[in-house]
Amino acid sequence: MSRIAVIAGQGGLAPAVIAALDAPLVYALDGFAPEVPATPFRLERLVPFLDGLIEAGVGRVVFAGAVRRPRLDPEAFDPRTAQLVPRILTAMQSGDDAVLREVLRIFEEHDLTICRVDEILPDLVPAEGVLAGQPSDADRRDAARAAEILAATGALDIGQGAVVAQGLCLALETLPGTAAMLDFAAAHAGLRPNAKGARGLLYKAPKPGQDRRIDLPTIGPDTVDQAAAAGLAGIAWQAGGVILLDRDEARRRAEAAGLFLWARG
Amino acid sequence: MSRIAVIAGQGGLAPAVIAALDAPLVYALDGFAPEVPATPFRLERLVPFLDGLIEAGVGRVVFAGAVRRPRLDPEAFDPRTAQLVPRILTAMQSGDDAVLREVLRIFEEHDLTICRVDEILPDLVPAEGVLAGQPSDADRRDAARAAEILAATGALDIGQGAVVAQGLCLALETLPGTAAMLDFAAAHAGLRPNAKGARGLLYKAPKPGQDRRIDLPTIGPDTVDQAAAAGLAGIAWQAGGVILLDRDEARRRAEAAGLFLWARG
Repeated sequence: MSRIAVIAGQGGLAPAVIAALDAPLVYALDGFAPEVPATPFRLERLVPFLDGLIEAGVGRVVFAGAVRRPRLDPEAFDPRTAQLVPRILTAMQSGDDAVLREVLRIFEEHDLTICRVDEILPDLVPAEGVLAGQPSDADRRDAARAAEILAATGALDIGQGAVVAQGLCLALETLPGTAAMLDFAAAHAGLRPNAKGARGLLYKAPKPGQDRRIDLPTIGPDTVDQAAAAGLAGIAWQAGGVILLDRDEARRRAEAAGLFLWARG
Repeated sequence: MSRIAVIAGQGGLAPAVIAALDAPLVYALDGFAPEVPATPFRLERLVPFLDGLIEAGVGRVVFAGAVRRPRLDPEAFDPRTAQLVPRILTAMQSGDDAVLREVLRIFEEHDLTICRVDEILPDLVPAEGVLAGQPSDADRRDAARAAEILAATGALDIGQGAVVAQGLCLALETLPGTAAMLDFAAAHAGLRPNAKGARGLLYKAPKPGQDRRIDLPTIGPDTVDQAAAAGLAGIAWQAGGVILLDRDEARRRAEAAGLFLWARG
């Protein structure tokens, strides 16, 4: 049985994945300290790092948590990784998804298998259903509108989230992420046409055609708090395509704040 | 010769249009006070308002400046406008563009012609060319990426602006508008991967298929100040599709701040 390595990103996913595994090796991109102890590695020395994984008996790798594109130091490259630079630079022109896809390909070329998070922790990705509260008909219309928006923006490799209220898009997720988008939506909540109408929702979905082995959208108890602070009616997401961390706590906070949680099929 | 009526919205476009016309009649949606004296009218009494325009000898109407969707008071409708409510409500489900298109149709059904702003003031909509500074190759790539993004999001009737830096989308314009988007981009400027690389740009374009008689994206000297405050390298826009207010002052401020202004063909 080969060992498993966790590439820990930021956020609560890495601790959850690590806790579910039997003594995994844990690594993190240098400069992006995760919430768990991890051995740092540099993208500029990717090939020696992959050689080290193989030597350590690693056969499977799981990416757990958000990784931002690192700043690259041209002088830090080893000769073999330097050969890969044209591939990575080309991918960078097409956005973060393309970079991650290219990095995954390089892992696979080293005979490492990339596992999906829900292969390790199936309960992390909720199937269709309402987990807290009850979305209204207006909320369901807003969710449909948000899903339509994300289907189009996701194809451009931008964003996995939107805030929609009364059919209007208050905010779209870009590089700064979900919490920044919810802050923005909260600051402009007064723009909803009908002050007594639907308060709107946060909607999350993976990008169409996204590689589900990395970078699935992730929500959790903190997201519930942020959505409540933004005055939203609830959170909806594409069932089967979004990681929900600490489901019990997220449901508890949603019920306490009067928010719905809805894995939309 | 029929008289012309200006429907004045917010921002600097209405004063510029009014100054160029000979004693136009000026109106504004109640609750959205423009920067010029204007007779208010209510969408709930649209039909009597249109009858009044015809009685006053108006044959042409120009929409000048941003109009937000008004809050509607169900008790304020007159009986004939009430007949139009199903059309307007249906359009509201599809976003602001659909509402505006429906309102334009109602004007036309009353034999009023809607003029484009650049029919009155051709200089307001710059043709292709660099008006200040010089976009770099990296800026040109960012502009191409932004144009690609807006072509897709515009089809969804959201946003006419984006901030792109080093190929990454920092912000997308939604209901709160350009200034709010630039504030957001400024707050998250540190996310650019290469601190010494391209600073990025604001890009503006009309929505694909948009009715050019209303709601063209508008930039001006204030936009230059906001883009400079956000640390951007410049502003680019779709040539022929964006209104540039007070071109001389915008160029002066752009040159002073070291920003480019580029009507991209």
